[in-house]
Amino acid sequence: MNKEEAKILIDFMEKIGYRFYEPELLYNALCHSSYAHEQKQRGRKDVESNERLEFLGDAVIDLLLAEYLYLEFPEASEGVMAKVKAAIASEEALAQIARDINLGRYMFLGRGEEVSSGRKRDSLLADMLEAVVAAVYIDGGLTAVKKVLLSYFAKYAKEVVEGKIVFDYKTSLQEITQARYRKLPEYVLVNEKGPSHMKKFTVELRLSGKLIAVGEGPSIKEAEKEAARRAIEKLKGD
Amino acid sequence: MNKEEAKILIDFMEKIGYRFYEPELLYNALCHSSYAHEQKQRGRKDVESNERLEFLGDAVIDLLLAEYLYLEFPEASEGVMAKVKAAIASEEALAQIARDINLGRYMFLGRGEEVSSGRKRDSLLADMLEAVVAAVYIDGGLTAVKKVLLSYFAKYAKEVVEGKIVFDYKTSLQEITQARYRKLPEYVLVNEKGPSHMKKFTVELRLSGKLIAVGEGPSIKEAEKEAARRAIEKLKGD
Repeated sequence: MNKEEAKILIDFMEKIGYRFYEPELLYNALCHSSYAHEQKQRGRKDVESNERLEFLGDAVIDLLLAEYLYLEFPEASEGVMAKVKAAIASEEALAQIARDINLGRYMFLGRGEEVSSGRKRDSLLADMLEAVVAAVYIDGGLTAVKKVLLSYFAKYAKEVVEGKIVFDYKTSLQEITQARYRKLPEYVLVNEKGPSHMKKFTVELRLSGKLIAVGEGPSIKEAEKEAARRAIEKLKGD
Repeated sequence: MNKEEAKILIDFMEKIGYRFYEPELLYNALCHSSYAHEQKQRGRKDVESNERLEFLGDAVIDLLLAEYLYLEFPEASEGVMAKVKAAIASEEALAQIARDINLGRYMFLGRGEEVSSGRKRDSLLADMLEAVVAAVYIDGGLTAVKKVLLSYFAKYAKEVVEGKIVFDYKTSLQEITQARYRKLPEYVLVNEKGPSHMKKFTVELRLSGKLIAVGEGPSIKEAEKEAARRAIEKLKGD
C-alpha cells in the first residue's frame, strides 16, 4: 500500500479502536474489486479485491449474531432467533452499521463506483462491512470481533427483538398489508432521470391501485425500499 | 440427567475425544424435541429440546467451513467457496458426518421417532450434529470445535473441491441432465408400503419418460435422493 492509503488505514483503526497486527488484512478488506481492478491495470501487484474476505465475514457475522441471541435471549425460540438474525444480517442493517462506523469514508473504490455514489450505496457498504469483520477475525480472532464490533450489532438486535426497528422494509410492509387488507403492495417505476452513472429512479407504491407512498433512489431496488419505508410509517400512523 | 443417560454421554465424549466442562450442554444437544417432550410429560424438568443449540450450531459450522476454505484454498474464488460450503452444510453431508462419528447411537429420541427409524434419517442426524457442534463451541470455543471436529468436515470439503464426491444428488443430477440432454429428471412415486410408522417409498427417476433409476427410502424425499444418486452413477458410467 502507498502512504496515502496507509494514512487512511491508521485513521480507520483509530475510529474502530483496534490496531491490526497485520494491517495488510485491513487494506485488503477496504479494497473494493473496482479499485483492485483499476490499480492492477496501473501495474500495482499488492492490491487484491476484498471479495474472499467478504465471503468469510458473512459467516463471522452469522455466528456473532447467533451466539449473541442464544446467550442473551434464553427464552427466544429458534424461530424468533432466526428472524432477528436475518434482519440484522440484511443488506439494510449491515449498511446502517457500516454508516455508524463511518465506513464510507475509508473505502478504496474505483472511479466508476466513485462517480456513481458507491460510498453511499447499501449493497456496497454491507459487503465492505463483511470484509472488515473478516479482517478483524483473521487478525485477532472472535475475541477481537466481539470486543471491537459486537456492540454495533447488538444495539440493533435488541431493537429488532423489542419491535422498535425494522430493516427489511419490503417484507415488513408485505406482512402488514397482507394481515390488514389481504393485499400485496405494488411497486410501479414512474420516473428515471439523470446520466447513466448517476441515475435517479422514482417508484410509486400502490395498494389496490391507490397511491400510498413514493420513493426515490439511485437504483430501482433502493427506490422501492424507500417507498416501502415511507408506506410503513404512513400505515403505522393510520 | 439420569445414570443411563450419563453413561451414554461418557461413551460419546470418549468417541469424539472431548471431555465437556459442562456435560449438561452435551446432554441438551443430544435431546431431540420428541424426547424432551416425552420426558416433560413424565414430570422431568431437566430435559430441554436441542433446537436452540441446533440454530447456533448451524452458524458455527458455517464459520468453520468458511474459514477452512478461506485459509486452505487461497486460489478459490468466493463463488467456488460458496458452492463447496453449501455442499458440506447440506443435510446429506451433515448426516454423513454424523454417521462417521456414530451419532445415531447416542441420541435421545422419543418413542415416535424411535419406531420410525429416526436414528437413520438424514434430517434428524444433520440437526443433531449441528446441536453437538454448538455444545462443543459453547463449552470450549472455536478452538475446541476445530480440534475435535474440523477434520471430519475438512475431509469432505477437500473431496468436494477435487470433484471426487457429490452431496446434493438431486441438484447435481439436474445439472448433468440439463447440460447433456437439456432435460430435467422426473420423479414418480410408484409404490408405498408398510404401516404408517415404518413406511417404505419407491420412486422411479425418468428422463423423457425413460426409466433411469429406482430409489427406495423411509420418506419420498429420501427415496428421490437415492434414485438421483443411482442415476448419477449410471450416467457417469455411460
